[in-house]
Amino acid sequence: MTKRIAIIGAGPSGLAVLRAFENARRKGADIPELTCFEKQDDWGGLWKYSWRTGLDHYGEPVHGSMYRYLWSNGPKECLEFADYSFEEHFGRPIPSYPPRAVLHDYIMGRVAKSDVRKYVRFETPVRWVAYDEASGLFTVRVKDLKADRDHSETFDHVIVASGHFSTPNVPYFEGLESFPGRVMHAHDFRSADEFAGKDMLMIGSSYSAEDIGTQCFKYGARSVTFSYRSKPLGFDWPEGFEEKPLLRKLVGKTAFFADGTSRKVDAIVLCTGYQHNFPFLPDELRLKTNNRLYPLNLYKGVAWQPNPKLFYIGMQDQYYTFNMFDAQAWYARDMILGRIAMPDADTRQADILDWRRREEAIENPFQGIDFQTGYVRDLLSATDYPFLDVDAVAALFKEWEHDKEHSILGYRDKSYRSVLTGNMAPVHHTKWMEAMDDSLAAFLAVPDAA
Amino acid sequence: MTKRIAIIGAGPSGLAVLRAFENARRKGADIPELTCFEKQDDWGGLWKYSWRTGLDHYGEPVHGSMYRYLWSNGPKECLEFADYSFEEHFGRPIPSYPPRAVLHDYIMGRVAKSDVRKYVRFETPVRWVAYDEASGLFTVRVKDLKADRDHSETFDHVIVASGHFSTPNVPYFEGLESFPGRVMHAHDFRSADEFAGKDMLMIGSSYSAEDIGTQCFKYGARSVTFSYRSKPLGFDWPEGFEEKPLLRKLVGKTAFFADGTSRKVDAIVLCTGYQHNFPFLPDELRLKTNNRLYPLNLYKGVAWQPNPKLFYIGMQDQYYTFNMFDAQAWYARDMILGRIAMPDADTRQADILDWRRREEAIENPFQGIDFQTGYVRDLLSATDYPFLDVDAVAALFKEWEHDKEHSILGYRDKSYRSVLTGNMAPVHHTKWMEAMDDSLAAFLAVPDAA
Repeated sequence: MTKRIAIIGAGPSGLAVLRAFENARRKGADIPELTCFEKQDDWGGLWKYSWRTGLDHYGEPVHGSMYRYLWSNGPKECLEFADYSFEEHFGRPIPSYPPRAVLHDYIMGRVAKSDVRKYVRFETPVRWVAYDEASGLFTVRVKDLKADRDHSETFDHVIVASGHFSTPNVPYFEGLESFPGRVMHAHDFRSADEFAGKDMLMIGSSYSAEDIGTQCFKYGARSVTFSYRSKPLGFDWPEGFEEKPLLRKLVGKTAFFADGTSRKVDAIVLCTGYQHNFPFLPDELRLKTNNRLYPLNLYKGVAWQPNPKLFYIGMQDQYYTFNMFDAQAWYARDMILGRIAMPDADTRQADILDWRRREEAIENPFQGIDFQTGYVRDLLSATDYPFLDVDAVAALFKEWEHDKEHSILGYRDKSYRSVLTGNMAPVHHTKWMEAMDDSLAAFLAVPDAA
Repeated sequence: MTKRIAIIGAGPSGLAVLRAFENARRKGADIPELTCFEKQDDWGGLWKYSWRTGLDHYGEPVHGSMYRYLWSNGPKECLEFADYSFEEHFGRPIPSYPPRAVLHDYIMGRVAKSDVRKYVRFETPVRWVAYDEASGLFTVRVKDLKADRDHSETFDHVIVASGHFSTPNVPYFEGLESFPGRVMHAHDFRSADEFAGKDMLMIGSSYSAEDIGTQCFKYGARSVTFSYRSKPLGFDWPEGFEEKPLLRKLVGKTAFFADGTSRKVDAIVLCTGYQHNFPFLPDELRLKTNNRLYPLNLYKGVAWQPNPKLFYIGMQDQYYTFNMFDAQAWYARDMILGRIAMPDADTRQADILDWRRREEAIENPFQGIDFQTGYVRDLLSATDYPFLDVDAVAALFKEWEHDKEHSILGYRDKSYRSVLTGNMAPVHHTKWMEAMDDSLAAFLAVPDAA
């Protein structure tokens, strides 16, 4: 009997899985029956922008964490799929830092060509997964939101590809309950417009703080204060920005920091990260981890160690994104197809611990880039995924780190060379700080200026 | 063997159930074993204010829909418990329209005296309820959020008291996705402060629109526009307010209405109601209804018609609130204890349809008040709940409707007579439009002025 596989989520990770199997099928392989459950009404995961926050029209938590005016914060050359260049998609080279709509168009263009939409059941969140030892099958209970009905189906494998940047981590600070202004987590940030003229406080010192803070400044915020727990972002900030140690408390609109200083702020954005959250998984199947490069219990970063019929895609902290999800999807596919043997539990555990030891030795971002490069290379070497020059990608990541260090408001004006086509990206027609329109049309309006 | 009962939620409805059983126990009855599952870290349901919006620190949907500066929008004399007057709680008469903190104190004071906290498991949301025909038992799966673990228990009865003002109903309007300002549902509204000087648009024409709109005005909004689907709120609005038919679309900050008019707005509050949402119930146990005075499938408004081992409390649209939940809890308790016989399915259905016919004949709010008065009286007449003069309460409701009609910004300055003590409430020391501090201390600061 044909095996059945449930894939949870039709974002970049879930779509990578669908494409991995479809790719094998087109090359003549017998593939399992695929069913991808997606809670949103279209695919794209986080890249599908939603104006909604909190709960959606079905009362489901809103998946989207992206906001208007979001531009890629890394060069597109670092996330290019090995089998589909930006140049192929857009018919010409485009600048290195596109806005969200352009990246969304790229991801969707590739998947639209691959005829995998038929596998996806939209507006169908997974409610519960249970594994039955006797039958060796998973029972997956889903909710058909449109029909307002529940039902269950059984599967041989489950692949969790539901992402980990959707459930906010929201700490409490004294005085938040009576702060007379807006308080939100980055997950609920949608538009910088409402903060023009305001004094903004960003709690956190990672990508969300950096990006939402600079964006608010770009769209007219009067000042942006970052508050860090362990270390500052440390960029050479222009006037209008400042960094403070951790917030201690709020009294009215006044924020007091750990160094004894204070300042008045009008709005607070909690850029305090996300939780790995799988409310549809029982304890014995559920990954518990913080956001890091090598979570435990995932063999090769994908197979659930206690029960390797279950897989996770994209659960690591990420330098690599789309192409790493591809590498993982191809690897998981080949384990399911039996092309790659599943080692015994001890061998798997030794491999996991070996990678984990290497991850724990990482001392700086460059070593982090090298670590993840090695991980992606390890996966790619075992499958028929098209050649990807990960060393060249790693070099781009390092260049990007330097460029950000050099100018946090100017690094998006840089160009990089595609590791696929060898072509240099053109310079964009407008500097990022002056590019207020984030539409695809505006971005593509002027032909190559390179 | 002692029966086991699961109560879902420790808000006013769930607490009414706990008190109903505890009351019987104190009078010498053998009562079942009670387990109340509460997802929040304390009891009080909606009355427990939270600054959080969207998802909480566990990634669970935030239950709270209340906001700072919320004052009762009906006289406290209409919601007084028959066995616990406001005067008993506060030691003296207090004004008729208290802020949230004062009502919270009253509800909590009564329940604290009743020694039912031992039945409540906090931070423990119910994930799934299943009924097994063979054993006649319900299996309830819960999540212990603090321990981060799932487990299941079986029960003879389940009582759903999880409320229906927590899951927002959020419609889409053209242009919302690019509106350059804040868009939120009333569920996520927390503080009027951030809207001082702004032009506000409230979509909706029920209690949320009326209350959030007037509150924003009170705290300095420049203007408040209400947009209604079927009919306007119709109050005699002072300058600064206006009513428009339904929003057609937004273009930038300009809102276009069904009558062809338009105006620029800075922020939008979707006061578009709530959904009855029970993601933890399978289709066959799940109440599906809009917000109305007599949903189908609930015998006496509480017993689930297809399986009357299951009960719902507080699922109706409400004139009566706390005292109606009490009446329902006492009635459900007595059916479970066998003091009130459970009629056969046909008899129950005939009773449901009879009430429903009367509900459908309602033509105005006064008839709605009379209908719910009759319903509460029907329940009260069958149990040992202390005498409550519902005709006197109904008269207060009608007086309140008149007072609102007379002055939408001034009705909270009125006083009413307690149907329990017969005492007239004192006039508050400050008119509502000038009372900016909503704390319990500020409200109680000045002794009786009546």
